[in-house]
Amino acid sequence: MALTRCVAVLLIVFLTLSPTSSSQSIIQMITKEETHLSSDGVSGRRRGIDLYCESWRFTVETNDAGSWSRIPEKCADFVKEYITGERYSSESEAVADSSLAYAKSVGLSGNGKDAWVFDIDETLLSNVPYYAIHGFGSEIFDESSFDEWVDLAEAPALTASLRLYKGLQELGFTIILLTGRAEFQRNCTGINLQYAGYSNWERLILRGDSDHGKTASVYKSEKRKELEDEGYVIHGNSGDQWSDLTGFAVATRSFKLPNSMYFIA
Amino acid sequence: MALTRCVAVLLIVFLTLSPTSSSQSIIQMITKEETHLSSDGVSGRRRGIDLYCESWRFTVETNDAGSWSRIPEKCADFVKEYITGERYSSESEAVADSSLAYAKSVGLSGNGKDAWVFDIDETLLSNVPYYAIHGFGSEIFDESSFDEWVDLAEAPALTASLRLYKGLQELGFTIILLTGRAEFQRNCTGINLQYAGYSNWERLILRGDSDHGKTASVYKSEKRKELEDEGYVIHGNSGDQWSDLTGFAVATRSFKLPNSMYFIA
Repeated sequence: MALTRCVAVLLIVFLTLSPTSSSQSIIQMITKEETHLSSDGVSGRRRGIDLYCESWRFTVETNDAGSWSRIPEKCADFVKEYITGERYSSESEAVADSSLAYAKSVGLSGNGKDAWVFDIDETLLSNVPYYAIHGFGSEIFDESSFDEWVDLAEAPALTASLRLYKGLQELGFTIILLTGRAEFQRNCTGINLQYAGYSNWERLILRGDSDHGKTASVYKSEKRKELEDEGYVIHGNSGDQWSDLTGFAVATRSFKLPNSMYFIA
Repeated sequence: MALTRCVAVLLIVFLTLSPTSSSQSIIQMITKEETHLSSDGVSGRRRGIDLYCESWRFTVETNDAGSWSRIPEKCADFVKEYITGERYSSESEAVADSSLAYAKSVGLSGNGKDAWVFDIDETLLSNVPYYAIHGFGSEIFDESSFDEWVDLAEAPALTASLRLYKGLQELGFTIILLTGRAEFQRNCTGINLQYAGYSNWERLILRGDSDHGKTASVYKSEKRKELEDEGYVIHGNSGDQWSDLTGFAVATRSFKLPNSMYFIA
């Protein structure tokens, strides 16, 4: 408001004194002020939406939100900017740092049974190229087009997770991959992982026929329990969904990666 | 600020309009641009720190960070602005909304055993007035000065939690308060809760002599187990620490409130 008055006063001063030589610079200054004002107005509304979307994201990342099928409509731009901006990768790096700090503190048995369990989608591999052409979570999930994308085996690594993966291998952890992808996707998943830079995992566990219809939380808990029964100690578990991490047979430490695009129960 | 800028711009206009001043005005405009650039430089560095602190906060709120004793030194301003700004209350309101949406979906037995467990500090009561004069988490926790603050019984309610509390009572939930505060603080805690607007809780559970030395997670799990053994069904649990919510005898749904100021194991 004060700025609006300021622009008005400037205009009066300009008209009263009516110079010719510097009129252009003054007009440019006024235009600049107006642009600034207009952009302030826009960013005021934008800040309100950002505040709403930040708070929504808090409830998603802490598992407070419960089940949801699509990002809020008004958060489409917010999520797009978050995912494609520097925050998503920065948060992923911070999670990798926390994971590695813990991993270094673990006393390993050295018998090959010191396990770290990784989820795949949005944990080791990034499907952002797919979601970028599907509204970053603002469209209802379409399984058939996603399966076509998976079949291409072109998903890049999450850079932070690749660093963590290699770091864990250097420390001597045995890597187990536990994914909600189905058995028929075993081949393309393995090819994609290698294409993205991952290698030497101990086991790749996918949903078999008997796992269909189970929630991710139940299916993954059952598989972790089987690993424990085989003698594995699951020191760490990394996943972008709470259903990767909770249930039973949970790891000593679980690491939640960010994902503002979709929810899996 | 806007008025100061207005005066500065007016000054430039007068200098611009004087016969000999067009070059001077250009210099001043350039100076102004440089100031703007320089302020952008400052906010550029600030953005870098904010990005770091946002990412740190992500690891804290998702329980990825593990144990920590103090907020990172460079995040002191960030945490202060977060707590005193609109985000902290907005996130708290979003958590209350998620909690209430779930609560409304619960089929209550109506036998008085439908329980909702609340933590107290930074969940029902806000100690921000205390932390505001102790660096918002940038100082090491000092138990004796904190106990003096607790004894004053002047902590205000977290507005969002008071709304949730009353909403749950209207729905018919039995409210159980489970706090890490000690038995000797029972009196001032009850007085403070009533001063802040809370009433009609079923039970207030504090650390007894046998609970000292236990982690909050173990102590609170044991107390929840005792409640279950008495026939309570713990439908919901609200707390600002993961140690309020995890362990055993966990609630059907747990709701993590934000807290960037301190960590309790």
